[in-house]
Amino acid sequence: MKIDFERAVKLLKENDDILILSHASPDGDAIGSSFALMLALKKLGKRARVLNNDTYPEKFSFITTLPNKDEFEEKFIVTTDVADAVLLGKDIKEKYADKIDLAIDHHGSNKAYAKETYVEANSASACEIVYLIIEALGAEIDEEIASCLFTGVSTDTGCFRYSNVTPRTHIIAAKLIEYGAQHSKINTAMFETKKKSFLELQKLCLETMDILLDGRACVFVVTNKMKEETGCEDADLDAIAALSRQIEGVKVGVLIKEKADGTFKASVRTDEDVDAAKICSAFGGGGHMRAAGCSFECSEDEAKQQIVSVIKEQL
Amino acid sequence: MKIDFERAVKLLKENDDILILSHASPDGDAIGSSFALMLALKKLGKRARVLNNDTYPEKFSFITTLPNKDEFEEKFIVTTDVADAVLLGKDIKEKYADKIDLAIDHHGSNKAYAKETYVEANSASACEIVYLIIEALGAEIDEEIASCLFTGVSTDTGCFRYSNVTPRTHIIAAKLIEYGAQHSKINTAMFETKKKSFLELQKLCLETMDILLDGRACVFVVTNKMKEETGCEDADLDAIAALSRQIEGVKVGVLIKEKADGTFKASVRTDEDVDAAKICSAFGGGGHMRAAGCSFECSEDEAKQQIVSVIKEQL
Repeated sequence: MKIDFERAVKLLKENDDILILSHASPDGDAIGSSFALMLALKKLGKRARVLNNDTYPEKFSFITTLPNKDEFEEKFIVTTDVADAVLLGKDIKEKYADKIDLAIDHHGSNKAYAKETYVEANSASACEIVYLIIEALGAEIDEEIASCLFTGVSTDTGCFRYSNVTPRTHIIAAKLIEYGAQHSKINTAMFETKKKSFLELQKLCLETMDILLDGRACVFVVTNKMKEETGCEDADLDAIAALSRQIEGVKVGVLIKEKADGTFKASVRTDEDVDAAKICSAFGGGGHMRAAGCSFECSEDEAKQQIVSVIKEQL
Repeated sequence: MKIDFERAVKLLKENDDILILSHASPDGDAIGSSFALMLALKKLGKRARVLNNDTYPEKFSFITTLPNKDEFEEKFIVTTDVADAVLLGKDIKEKYADKIDLAIDHHGSNKAYAKETYVEANSASACEIVYLIIEALGAEIDEEIASCLFTGVSTDTGCFRYSNVTPRTHIIAAKLIEYGAQHSKINTAMFETKKKSFLELQKLCLETMDILLDGRACVFVVTNKMKEETGCEDADLDAIAALSRQIEGVKVGVLIKEKADGTFKASVRTDEDVDAAKICSAFGGGGHMRAAGCSFECSEDEAKQQIVSVIKEQL
């Protein structure tokens, strides 16, 4: 059942012994929103605990090492930033998927898997919503809660860069800085620090850079050998895919990456004039308007040739 | 003479036929603040014109192609974002340096070269101050003025990433988006789009990457040959210098760059624990705590060896 803001606040106010879950492969918004809510509920004298299916990336340790040891049998289960129960991850899903009392989310695609669901699809982050809920609950926002929330507000907007940013995003950021959020340290850790292994992979990828179709398309290639040589993982490849489309004049960027079994997958990124999902659907793939993917059974060269010919038609 | 906010507003209100100057090699804050003020003064029925010593970078053309053709003999001369008359550039300085009526600036180091000077050293950008002035003047802020101001607010903070950001910065950003600033387009153009030539230079620089002193220092080298091969200019090297310090664990980043005459210059970037100016002073150079530079008459290898030995002492 979809509920309104007041009902979501009321549920949190009236319940105790609250378990807070977020999505597997947790990012800044998942971690920030779940920990901020946990800390705020404790300020109100409640018992609360955060649980995640997966380990937390090291760069979020300033959040994930905050006290999270309340022991209790959960009486109320909340998710933050989880659009679909399957995203909770295997173990958490098996144990809790059918027991979730309240989902707080900013995905318009939310599957309403919880008993009650509060979704604000126009919110740039779950942390924006959790900020408003904490304010409405009357819990004190200290420096730690502010830093948790700022992390989600900043990471889910690419440091205030994406088109999902609204005036409210900036107003909440201002308030969180006033409450003591370590904004500059957080932004440096999230957006400035680069791994040496990633720069080495980027160097190898730049050697494969092929700018085609009068500068309107760019193709990068990543092989398993390149990943092995640099020690990079699949998670590092998103930034390479994004880079393929960030070059001046490029409307379609492609990253052709070798899979473990030696076949290839293409990640396609487009600017607003070109439909990435349409390009990928020619090869049985799919995705969104600006980011999509598809697989190939052929060689790297053939895959590149095939996808470039479809891109040529679309431009 | 240093003046307060009210006096600065009064001067603009009482004068007409206003010439607005900003610093040479104009950046987003110089261009955004001067054009926004010009447009706002015109909203009040005044005649106003912006003049710069240098040509404007192409990426600011959405601002610099706005109507700027008022013809008049200037009766009042204002600068925005100019700390020192010498920064106006040769021609503008010769013609106007001793005639400036009002300087609006956010540099604590402002040399008070104008008849009256309004400085807010805690402001992250000149555009923040110009926003407040335009508001106080009672001029309507339309989409164009909002986009001019947003450009300066965003570029002078590295898209809200630097430690100069205050709650006010975000509050003003929120208001500018409400007034119609094209925030997402501006941020994409300023921070996302990369030149092919720059990526090629970055690839060559990454081949020179040397991580030393237990991962705490990184040295990159750029030769004249690398600049020629890629078509990059000195302006592109700032980002390479910044990158040298953004690698995980690195506290001191160095870019050794060959000068036109074949000698070398080092750009040193440090994190908050290390004094870059102190490192460079060992070689007769100087600068700020976190960014400094020095020159060498020796070979590239010797320069690298010498500066690394000084960094070792400082760490």
